[in-house]
Amino acid sequence: MDKEDLTNNSCEACHADAPLVTEEEIKELKPKIPAWQILNIDSIDRLSCSFAFKNYMEGLSFVSKVAAMAELEDHHPEIVLEWGKVTVSWWSHKIKGLHKNDFIAAAKTDAIYAG
Amino acid sequence: MDKEDLTNNSCEACHADAPLVTEEEIKELKPKIPAWQILNIDSIDRLSCSFAFKNYMEGLSFVSKVAAMAELEDHHPEIVLEWGKVTVSWWSHKIKGLHKNDFIAAAKTDAIYAG
Repeated sequence: MDKEDLTNNSCEACHADAPLVTEEEIKELKPKIPAWQILNIDSIDRLSCSFAFKNYMEGLSFVSKVAAMAELEDHHPEIVLEWGKVTVSWWSHKIKGLHKNDFIAAAKTDAIYAG
Repeated sequence: MDKEDLTNNSCEACHADAPLVTEEEIKELKPKIPAWQILNIDSIDRLSCSFAFKNYMEGLSFVSKVAAMAELEDHHPEIVLEWGKVTVSWWSHKIKGLHKNDFIAAAKTDAIYAG
């Protein structure tokens, strides 16, 4: 499966008993989103990536586009807007960690940034 | 000076040699923005407040309005968008702490939330 396949996926509804991604799946999926880091915050793994912008309003425009995608996917990231920088973090609240949905959403975020 | 006076102010250009607010000024200004906390992160004081929303897109709408105000004031906060919650933090990067501008901007943020 190449990156194109990942962005062509949609997030599936995620239930509390859905599986976290396995180590094997992370090895397969993570190289498709190389700019992203897996951070463990409050014992919950999340995919996090910062994107650079020329100013605040260009950052805001990106926030709006990512939010619109999130709404379509019914999967919502934490987004931090600062002057010249937007940091997006994806994780699956119901399973307190990473689901394949998060890798799909991260790849779609990269595609939005790439324009 | 009442809260009305604070929201009627505009942020002045802030230079690296501008004064941090004094303890006396904090005692005068902080009661005008009671919902805000002064947090010290990385040795820098900031005003921070979380606002509740029914969903992600209502939070995004608030982010856009605060960003538009920030652009007018040429003073830009960190804004964290999550599902149902937006956290706004104001501080003055050039002086690594709180300037009167930050209290003005916080009061204006409250006014936007109040609609």
